[in-house]
Amino acid sequence: MEGETVKRLSMILMVAASSLVLVACGSNNKLGTNSGSNKTQLTGSDSSSNYQSLIKDGHYQVSKSSGVDDQQTSNQFNLQGFQHGLLDISKKEFSPDKYVFQEGQEISTETTQNWLGRKSKDNPDGLNPEQPKKKVVPEYLQQIDEQDYLQPEGGKMKLKGMTVGLGLNSIYYYTKEKYGAQYSKKLDSAEIEKQGKELANIVLARLRKQKDLKNIPIVIALYKAAPDDSLVGGNFFAYSVNNPGSDSVSSWNKIDQKNYVFPTTNGEKAPNANDETAFNQFKEKAQSYFPNLSGITAQAQYTNGSLTGMHIDVTTQFYSYTEINSFTQYLQTSAEKYLPQNTPIEINVGSTNGVQSYLSRSKNAKKFSAHVFNNY
Amino acid sequence: MEGETVKRLSMILMVAASSLVLVACGSNNKLGTNSGSNKTQLTGSDSSSNYQSLIKDGHYQVSKSSGVDDQQTSNQFNLQGFQHGLLDISKKEFSPDKYVFQEGQEISTETTQNWLGRKSKDNPDGLNPEQPKKKVVPEYLQQIDEQDYLQPEGGKMKLKGMTVGLGLNSIYYYTKEKYGAQYSKKLDSAEIEKQGKELANIVLARLRKQKDLKNIPIVIALYKAAPDDSLVGGNFFAYSVNNPGSDSVSSWNKIDQKNYVFPTTNGEKAPNANDETAFNQFKEKAQSYFPNLSGITAQAQYTNGSLTGMHIDVTTQFYSYTEINSFTQYLQTSAEKYLPQNTPIEINVGSTNGVQSYLSRSKNAKKFSAHVFNNY
Repeated sequence: MEGETVKRLSMILMVAASSLVLVACGSNNKLGTNSGSNKTQLTGSDSSSNYQSLIKDGHYQVSKSSGVDDQQTSNQFNLQGFQHGLLDISKKEFSPDKYVFQEGQEISTETTQNWLGRKSKDNPDGLNPEQPKKKVVPEYLQQIDEQDYLQPEGGKMKLKGMTVGLGLNSIYYYTKEKYGAQYSKKLDSAEIEKQGKELANIVLARLRKQKDLKNIPIVIALYKAAPDDSLVGGNFFAYSVNNPGSDSVSSWNKIDQKNYVFPTTNGEKAPNANDETAFNQFKEKAQSYFPNLSGITAQAQYTNGSLTGMHIDVTTQFYSYTEINSFTQYLQTSAEKYLPQNTPIEINVGSTNGVQSYLSRSKNAKKFSAHVFNNY
Repeated sequence: MEGETVKRLSMILMVAASSLVLVACGSNNKLGTNSGSNKTQLTGSDSSSNYQSLIKDGHYQVSKSSGVDDQQTSNQFNLQGFQHGLLDISKKEFSPDKYVFQEGQEISTETTQNWLGRKSKDNPDGLNPEQPKKKVVPEYLQQIDEQDYLQPEGGKMKLKGMTVGLGLNSIYYYTKEKYGAQYSKKLDSAEIEKQGKELANIVLARLRKQKDLKNIPIVIALYKAAPDDSLVGGNFFAYSVNNPGSDSVSSWNKIDQKNYVFPTTNGEKAPNANDETAFNQFKEKAQSYFPNLSGITAQAQYTNGSLTGMHIDVTTQFYSYTEINSFTQYLQTSAEKYLPQNTPIEINVGSTNGVQSYLSRSKNAKKFSAHVFNNY
């Protein structure tokens, strides 16, 4: 931990010595004190495991590729999981101690739109296959997200690494005529993987043609989106680290990650049955507490067969402040007693009126912290 | 602090020695291990400034009086502020170290309904005045909330103190015919206070007729509700501590508390203009960060002329995970730089889809803690 702080600090000092204004974490920052013409700041970070982000002229640089979505997936979990998962993969190659995060600025919005489209006379760059007449040919590529990783060099922040996520359909949704009924076709997992890896090669080769992307490491990760009606998002299943200069992927790393909903249905089984038992005990305790509790469900993420995160939603009817206050304390006691150890867990308590309280515990903590939202 | 812990601990030991099963705060609790027939538990508490609550047979005892509301106020801030404020007043007389909280169990739902109604042949106990024909006679009493404070005695939890809040209209809303147009009449502050104090005397005398309420201290507090369209709740303006046995209020303590919305409108001024300036600087910084930020408003509570709490709502359009993550870090840095010190502050970041992240700082802390909500 101390080593990390020192590393972090030395990077901060290194940058501060340049002409940039940096915002270090902590209260002793210099936010907004620069009046130069090329005003660049960092957001600051709440922990050493979180990236600082670049701010230019007081404005956040939004992503050019993100949000451009071929099929306009209606599943928010896919969008969030895709971005969050990509950030986690990036951390393996571009440590938050050494790199600053910036939303993708290299692949333009227009390029993203073209790439996500079907190949055609008008769109020669389309990465989805041509559409022949009267035949269902699925599109595999659904979304692209680019993340940029910067380091200071010669008084400026320079692009020193990039991560690109390719989001792939697991189900192809289509209509036979405009505004017609929606049909769907389940795609084969092996074929999704094959298509994804071919697409990665094409994308990498295209990126290398851009001058400032020639000589940086580019990570490409493949994400299999969940169906539109899924209560959890999809999962990354492979990523490649491509050294500066290389324009085809030489090797893939497997990612073994999957999300489950508790209570499980349709005979689905989580990798570790104990986790669901623990959740069910917690759920039972909580539901007996109040006469009318609407529901308790969890999203559980497994990596390499072990639980690596849990998000629990407790849906209440509208309860009074004192009721939510007491209930939250009770949940805290029950969560510490029943829920699995050594994994980050967050619990949201809310009604249709919005969130009322929330509890969370980070990976290595023993106790949950709790907060009851308060209006005046 | 240590003294508090020792006091708290000794109370816990005292209770644990009785036949009750208690859940102390911390992980070493005994929740749910009792299988006796008269199963009583406590929720546990996350801090020494928060009450533990009673659980009977695994169920929370909901309030009998709360939620019965004469005029069905449409202002949620009034409901929440009423209960939360009453809890704060209770803490002055019934320390969380020494008393356990229970939702009001003494004033029945039917009694509450009768008391909140107008006096009539059918309802002789009505605390609002009789309705003469074709004349507007306002109702002053809007809601009643009872809170019970217990201590262990002879192996059981016994009622040892009670707080009753009387919620009073500041505007009387009425219709001239059923389902007709709504009219309103602003009530005079001095008259609200006069009516409230008279009502408190009647309520106290009635409570003393119940055997188990004869010889306990009863606190009565008066709350002036905000108008239905207010963006903040109303305020408590007086409370009385009535010694065991006394059946009329001998003296009132004044409460000087008021809530404001920032940015202020209609020429309203907060007691300390610096606080609003600080908020406006924070707001400006945050709004320049993202191209499309919908709005930032605050609720600010003043007690005796000083800021004693702030709740800030940041409304976003839907942003991606990485955007919310970076934005939250930026807010954390800005909040520490600009917002007033030495007061509890919470900041909610959310879209119409729900809360996305939140930040908070307790009264004496220097740094904000932040949490970005995460789905899988």
